[in-house]
Amino acid sequence: MSLFDGLKNTDMRVKLPVVCFIWELAMIILFGVFIRYNPQADAHYIVNNSNTTYLNEFYFRYPSFQDVHVMIFVGFGFLMTFLQRYSFSAVGFNFLVAAFGIQWALLMQGWFGSLDYSTGKILIGVENLINADFCVASCLIAYGGVLGKTSPVQLMIMTLIGVTLYAVEEYIILTLLNVRDAGGSMVIHIFGAYYGLAISRVLYRPKLNQEKNGSVYHSDVFAMIGTLFLWLFWPSFNSAISNTGDGQHRAMINTYVSLSSSVVTAVAISSLTQKKGKLDMVHIQNATLAGGVAMGTASEMMVSCYGALIVGFCCGIISTLGFVYLTPLLESKLHIQDTCGIHNLHGMPGLIGGIVGAITAAAASEAVYSREGLVSLFNFNGAFANRSASTQGGYQAAGICIALAFGLVGGTVVGFILKLPFWGDAPNENCFEDNIYWEVPEEEEKSPLVGMTYTNHGNNKPAAAEPRMQEH
Amino acid sequence: MSLFDGLKNTDMRVKLPVVCFIWELAMIILFGVFIRYNPQADAHYIVNNSNTTYLNEFYFRYPSFQDVHVMIFVGFGFLMTFLQRYSFSAVGFNFLVAAFGIQWALLMQGWFGSLDYSTGKILIGVENLINADFCVASCLIAYGGVLGKTSPVQLMIMTLIGVTLYAVEEYIILTLLNVRDAGGSMVIHIFGAYYGLAISRVLYRPKLNQEKNGSVYHSDVFAMIGTLFLWLFWPSFNSAISNTGDGQHRAMINTYVSLSSSVVTAVAISSLTQKKGKLDMVHIQNATLAGGVAMGTASEMMVSCYGALIVGFCCGIISTLGFVYLTPLLESKLHIQDTCGIHNLHGMPGLIGGIVGAITAAAASEAVYSREGLVSLFNFNGAFANRSASTQGGYQAAGICIALAFGLVGGTVVGFILKLPFWGDAPNENCFEDNIYWEVPEEEEKSPLVGMTYTNHGNNKPAAAEPRMQEH
Amino acid sequence: MSLFDGLKNTDMRVKLPVVCFIWELAMIILFGVFIRYNPQADAHYIVNNSNTTYLNEFYFRYPSFQDVHVMIFVGFGFLMTFLQRYSFSAVGFNFLVAAFGIQWALLMQGWFGSLDYSTGKILIGVENLINADFCVASCLIAYGGVLGKTSPVQLMIMTLIGVTLYAVEEYIILTLLNVRDAGGSMVIHIFGAYYGLAISRVLYRPKLNQEKNGSVYHSDVFAMIGTLFLWLFWPSFNSAISNTGDGQHRAMINTYVSLSSSVVTAVAISSLTQKKGKLDMVHIQNATLAGGVAMGTASEMMVSCYGALIVGFCCGIISTLGFVYLTPLLESKLHIQDTCGIHNLHGMPGLIGGIVGAITAAAASEAVYSREGLVSLFNFNGAFANRSASTQGGYQAAGICIALAFGLVGGTVVGFILKLPFWGDAPNENCFEDNIYWEVPEEEEKSPLVGMTYTNHGNNKPAAAEPRMQEH
Repeated sequence: MSLFDGLKNTDMRVKLPVVCFIWELAMIILFGVFIRYNPQADAHYIVNNSNTTYLNEFYFRYPSFQDVHVMIFVGFGFLMTFLQRYSFSAVGFNFLVAAFGIQWALLMQGWFGSLDYSTGKILIGVENLINADFCVASCLIAYGGVLGKTSPVQLMIMTLIGVTLYAVEEYIILTLLNVRDAGGSMVIHIFGAYYGLAISRVLYRPKLNQEKNGSVYHSDVFAMIGTLFLWLFWPSFNSAISNTGDGQHRAMINTYVSLSSSVVTAVAISSLTQKKGKLDMVHIQNATLAGGVAMGTASEMMVSCYGALIVGFCCGIISTLGFVYLTPLLESKLHIQDTCGIHNLHGMPGLIGGIVGAITAAAASEAVYSREGLVSLFNFNGAFANRSASTQGGYQAAGICIALAFGLVGGTVVGFILKLPFWGDAPNENCFEDNIYWEVPEEEEKSPLVGMTYTNHGNNKPAAAEPRMQEH
Repeated sequence: MSLFDGLKNTDMRVKLPVVCFIWELAMIILFGVFIRYNPQADAHYIVNNSNTTYLNEFYFRYPSFQDVHVMIFVGFGFLMTFLQRYSFSAVGFNFLVAAFGIQWALLMQGWFGSLDYSTGKILIGVENLINADFCVASCLIAYGGVLGKTSPVQLMIMTLIGVTLYAVEEYIILTLLNVRDAGGSMVIHIFGAYYGLAISRVLYRPKLNQEKNGSVYHSDVFAMIGTLFLWLFWPSFNSAISNTGDGQHRAMINTYVSLSSSVVTAVAISSLTQKKGKLDMVHIQNATLAGGVAMGTASEMMVSCYGALIVGFCCGIISTLGFVYLTPLLESKLHIQDTCGIHNLHGMPGLIGGIVGAITAAAASEAVYSREGLVSLFNFNGAFANRSASTQGGYQAAGICIALAFGLVGGTVVGFILKLPFWGDAPNENCFEDNIYWEVPEEEEKSPLVGMTYTNHGNNKPAAAEPRMQEH
Repeated sequence: MSLFDGLKNTDMRVKLPVVCFIWELAMIILFGVFIRYNPQADAHYIVNNSNTTYLNEFYFRYPSFQDVHVMIFVGFGFLMTFLQRYSFSAVGFNFLVAAFGIQWALLMQGWFGSLDYSTGKILIGVENLINADFCVASCLIAYGGVLGKTSPVQLMIMTLIGVTLYAVEEYIILTLLNVRDAGGSMVIHIFGAYYGLAISRVLYRPKLNQEKNGSVYHSDVFAMIGTLFLWLFWPSFNSAISNTGDGQHRAMINTYVSLSSSVVTAVAISSLTQKKGKLDMVHIQNATLAGGVAMGTASEMMVSCYGALIVGFCCGIISTLGFVYLTPLLESKLHIQDTCGIHNLHGMPGLIGGIVGAITAAAASEAVYSREGLVSLFNFNGAFANRSASTQGGYQAAGICIALAFGLVGGTVVGFILKLPFWGDAPNENCFEDNIYWEVPEEEEKSPLVGMTYTNHGNNKPAAAEPRMQEH
């Protein structure tokens, strides 16, 4: 009977619509009060000079924005479809969380960054949309750490607070400390990974049923859709908000080079650590991306192509080794159940990325960047006009610590909020199963052996057996 | 024996190649007579000033074009793969129809819009390709209404006439009446939806075998590929042919905001209307897109971000409710069998989009748009120089009626043409089954229970049982 | 016992990591010595004039680059997932080979094309990345010819030598002979196809187990993801490195038109040649793309839209007929086992494309192109200032022969290298099976009939039966 009690708790019929409606109505009110088009998107922008029309920032950011957008919804969504019976939740809740998150991010990041103080309005344009996608990425990383174990209501709460925390840490790191982090090794990946891991630690389930925590053949192929779109568009991710011109150009090249190197070493280590040298799809799906994460800070800097290659080389190795050796230890020793291995893909490579960025910044010289290049790239203007490259390196290192602290402390607090008993999370027996929160198609089956018809969703069958049978 | 008679009719070996060859040969002749490169794509364009080269419209439209292109072929194609055994037809016939349709659309829209009267030639460039994709979108919407019940020959006829009707109604609405409809709430969605529904009504099958009219687990995941690419690139769809500069920028932002809101309310209503609050993939796959449809007319206007949010909010609700309550009524009361629920995704949101556009246009003021902005956006030049905003609102409303009339009347006529008995549509028992028109892979099976080998495509088995067995 | 001996050979635990590490370390050293950012990606590029910043070539090539990038990794990768149990290898080895190949291509193409002689450095920017993707495409085409029969180590060797050969033939054809081949009908498709076919010929397996050389329902749907992204982005492929302005614009239009025509005729011939007129997914997945291959040379020329339509029309027919009649003959008569039918998709259409390009070039006139257009398009500058259009046509024809020779001779040599017994290729019985090189998820199964549990990966079952059972 405890199973049925458990199932009852997961009924979302009141909780989820209430949360969705309250939050969306709040968005409408807050958008009405605060959000306006920025001058480049406002009808007053019209000018007769076609040259000026064509210099609208839309044309220099929109292709990158769309690449990032695909990463958030297709990349992250499909990467998480690898579980045998959790694809609806992977791609569906990713969709819900991201669509809500970008709205809240536009507001939170707007208050901290794009507020027009004379009017009290947030003026948005394409760059804000990119930043909103970035912000949501951190929450989706965290989702990877708790995949299969949380209800959609918990995810909505995780996202609401996660976006809020992100906007604050981003403001402190990027604006107050003038740290450079174009692709977010620190503000996105470190924060997101440790936010998710801390939540996962607090929500530890000692008796978790791991039977469904694995893939089937076609779910692994679906996950490769996510992997590839993430891998392909990561150069756009790391260059999307860099300075126009050489900044975007260089950030893209460095990321591309680093990623290509990760693939080769991830394959090598995957083969080396498996019995009979067979490759593991988990490594190919994840560790191949580590080079992109680790280029998040330094991509726009003059890190040089072979530098990027070395970073990707190391991260492909470390990330794969993490999946093989560290993830089991995290569960057994630290009681962190990291479903997607976010510590291996975002945590460690993010830390490496932050360190690489700090070192590269500290080593920056006028000989390599030119004086104008150095000022422009590191924003040594205004209050930061007298900052030296080595001081900048120190601030970069401080950024790592702040992102880590926000992730760990914020995640712990959110974890305890999510531990409250009424959010409708699945009981241990039903984790990693779509049919707790989704109408899963019932497939009537005619047996090829005896020709008789039966329904494989009979109510008298144990719930745990259902999803597997649907696959027939 | 009637089953075999029925199957015999569906043999496409003569009909389909004949239609394909005749129509493609006609295209070659007509392209030879009429189609030329426009000056921006012609070798004479060469100038020494690199600035001018870089101002080629290619650079301001091509990224949007590619996003739209992905929506048409991957978005629409995969969205329709949700049926358990109709994925080949969904994505394959979508491919055929769209590839033929864009050729015919270049001609039809060219005669009405891009004809150079001095030479009698149609001059094409990237904007024409976007418009051709738009035109074809309306036919693919209509395909969604008859999915699973029509032969490829019927689809080719539906497309030939559909594109023709589209070009005429588009000319009347956009050119003669100077109605604004950048993302086609009216000319694409209303026309396409009611064109398809009228055809579906005439082709009503009272004894339709609905057994296969449902999904399996992985077909629902495939459909999410379609959903996500449609959702992601809809901002490009609604901004692709807007004025360069702030027009495209604003159209994109409005659509993005509206879509994000649809997702949240679609999820809320899906949970609220299902037993035990479980989400239904049909709603997530479709109703999340309603905000994009409903922003099709007003996206380039100063509708404001919270206005867009409200439109998405309402359409997510209405569209989901349509799937739950209206679709069954349409079938039982009006005898409209709407396979993909195009009335919920394109019909109602299209009507809302047309109305929102009319109201927004009527309310346009120089204070909000500036005089130049107003003239530029609503094209208050030449014959329309003296038109006021409120008059424009009236014309916008007229556009809704014209699109609706073209869809309903055109669809009814086409429906009766398609009802002729020799087009090779599937008998009731074989609707929603790929193996009428496709070689479906035969999968020999070793029984895991008794170790014996059998072929599950034995000819002595009832046809209806075949596809299910192939899934083993 | 011979089966187990065979399996033993395929252990990659030492070979694959060794190859990966040696080659990647070589890349790091060579990148360190040779590769630098080009001026447009270097921090010294900074200038105060925003106009110049916005004229960075990044903005004119990057959207095309990303489209090409998607084609290489998603397009080629998923196109090859059609085999029932070889999807991991298709998409995974494609990923490995392409990621390694682009690094080596940057070096090889750099030495031949982008070397700054004053410093001895290769200066890279976005155009080099496009060219690297192009180069790798030829090796992936070759992979299609040997799909299912080679080990990852063999593929790495094939790629290393393939990229090297490509860089040489490209230098001879494009630079020394000043042949135009923007989309690579010759340098990519002819070379890649005949390189792969020659290798396949040398590696002929008379007793190949063809049982697994076929698709299942969902693997065919996965393959359509590859087809569609290839089809959609082919206009970007053929225009990515054309002259900016009208050159890119025209190349895109021609490819788009040609591709649309291929779809219609591929469908027609597929229906015409199959019993009962049923369509074959193999044709839809492949022959629809032939129009893009065949426009690879002439796309940037004034081939006219109806000319492009005719090319697509013919190639759709020829390619489909090739699948139906020629592929079986190639195997039975010439002992070429062409898994993906690369001769039909890349070989023949590539040859046609080369010929179309030669004729179009020979027929070029100042009346059609303008003097400036002709000089600019065919690069009639410097050493080639006095070349006439008809001479150019002759050189174009020579390009075909060179690409063919490089493919056939190079492929034969590589084939004999790959025939050495220690590269770990699968025995005949295990070709087309992922579980030789991959950890394939084990799926425990509860029988719906008798309720008992069994594991369908029992070691006492014949290896050949395993993958099929996993599909339950």
